[in-house]
Amino acid sequence: MAPQSPTAAGPLVAIGGAEDRTSDLEILKQVFSLSQPDSREVAVIATASGIPEQILPIYATAFGRLGASRVHALAIQSREQAADARNVTLIRQSGVIFFTGGDQLRLTSILGGSPVLEAVRTRLATGAVVAGTSAGAAAMPGTMIYNGCATDALRKGGVNMTFGLGLVAGLVIDSHFLARGRFTRLMEVGASNPEQLGVGIGEDAGVIIHPNRVLEAIGPGHVVLIDSRELAHTNIAELSMGEAVSIEHMILHALVSGHGFDIDARRYLDADALATCLAEAP
Amino acid sequence: MAPQSPTAAGPLVAIGGAEDRTSDLEILKQVFSLSQPDSREVAVIATASGIPEQILPIYATAFGRLGASRVHALAIQSREQAADARNVTLIRQSGVIFFTGGDQLRLTSILGGSPVLEAVRTRLATGAVVAGTSAGAAAMPGTMIYNGCATDALRKGGVNMTFGLGLVAGLVIDSHFLARGRFTRLMEVGASNPEQLGVGIGEDAGVIIHPNRVLEAIGPGHVVLIDSRELAHTNIAELSMGEAVSIEHMILHALVSGHGFDIDARRYLDADALATCLAEAP
Repeated sequence: MAPQSPTAAGPLVAIGGAEDRTSDLEILKQVFSLSQPDSREVAVIATASGIPEQILPIYATAFGRLGASRVHALAIQSREQAADARNVTLIRQSGVIFFTGGDQLRLTSILGGSPVLEAVRTRLATGAVVAGTSAGAAAMPGTMIYNGCATDALRKGGVNMTFGLGLVAGLVIDSHFLARGRFTRLMEVGASNPEQLGVGIGEDAGVIIHPNRVLEAIGPGHVVLIDSRELAHTNIAELSMGEAVSIEHMILHALVSGHGFDIDARRYLDADALATCLAEAP
Repeated sequence: MAPQSPTAAGPLVAIGGAEDRTSDLEILKQVFSLSQPDSREVAVIATASGIPEQILPIYATAFGRLGASRVHALAIQSREQAADARNVTLIRQSGVIFFTGGDQLRLTSILGGSPVLEAVRTRLATGAVVAGTSAGAAAMPGTMIYNGCATDALRKGGVNMTFGLGLVAGLVIDSHFLARGRFTRLMEVGASNPEQLGVGIGEDAGVIIHPNRVLEAIGPGHVVLIDSRELAHTNIAELSMGEAVSIEHMILHALVSGHGFDIDARRYLDADALATCLAEAP
């Protein structure tokens, strides 16, 4: 009934891409540590990937090292597979559901409206951890970016967007954020609708979106936030396509590991404030 | 907390544009008739319009003829005005809130995250009618189309989208649908994410989105639905920008006045079935 903003009971973890998968697994370790002790099976969904046969064994090994009781490697490359009851069953029994990188349009065009996606939502609502890297992170919100060169963004229409997987409301996620200089993409989105918090995740960085809608940065990289809520003015509605967008007043944050942000209150949380917020959570 | 899918208590009415405003007012009459008997004040929000001083008096006269006790003409052309407590108060006391046409990016870039939009959502949740025509209809969902030539659509990236006003979840709305031949726009959106129902509204046609998520077509024109839920395959994720999108299996409906559709069950409702659905609603 409310696909774009479930009341999550489990945490989401959005990862900026290129997280360590073979060495000390810092980010994947945090993902796995969020799972409930009685629910240590992991489903890895490689729908976004064009090379699932290469990527799935890497994650299977990584989660195996971290203590997963079983790892289900789900390629899911067609809508038929996204409706397959066997895949649905494996997701239902998993405590961690992980979306690999690749192309977010593959994720949405194959999983949109499918029994597999519905099972992921149900598991999130009942306490599972849902994590994704790169495309798997970008696709999480109700609306996602799927294309847009950083140098063309901030020109009207420079960012291409469509409906995402609907796992979290009120924000837009961009990945590979610092490596690819994507500030302009989130600025254009913020100008088009200042309500939505822009979350730009660097490589080998991630953000836990706790069920109480508090963000927590993890990993060695940065999480950049672009908060347009107090936007004073933009010309975006007056422009022709391709013309330069003006922006008066957006707020920028860069979170490092252990720092956080309250999405709804728009409040930056240092390590102490974050600890308090998370301790208070039900 | 859940801006993209409020549990609406009041109906939404999306109008395809160019509805009659001066003669027999067929569609506006139906909008007004949905308001609660003790709540006959109307707020007309002309934020989308570049010529609010011309359009506001036309709607003020029309709703006056229909029996509005007061009509509040709200131009709201800046983010400062969208935070003005006087405008919030006028919306709070209105039983009908009407968004004029114009440019949907003006609506979202000026109203996104504002106290005025929050007041509109609160009124919808407490039983007010929220209606919009053209841009005012297109902006209603969590994600909206704001640009895209029908002849370029169905080529990857041909449709430009961003976050909408978040008044309804699970669908995308296009207006002036038959006059401007916009089938390809909703097909591209459906290929990018088959979960979302495409609702294409003709001129002088409208669709009531009842709180139980049943659609009801009104007015002399057509309401076209493009249902991609059973999409078998699309190549959209494999393409470069600008390349032609393939689609295997979308379902198309054309509703006329008195016919309906159950959004979540994906069920076409003829006049009898619609009457049953609406009679059963709480």
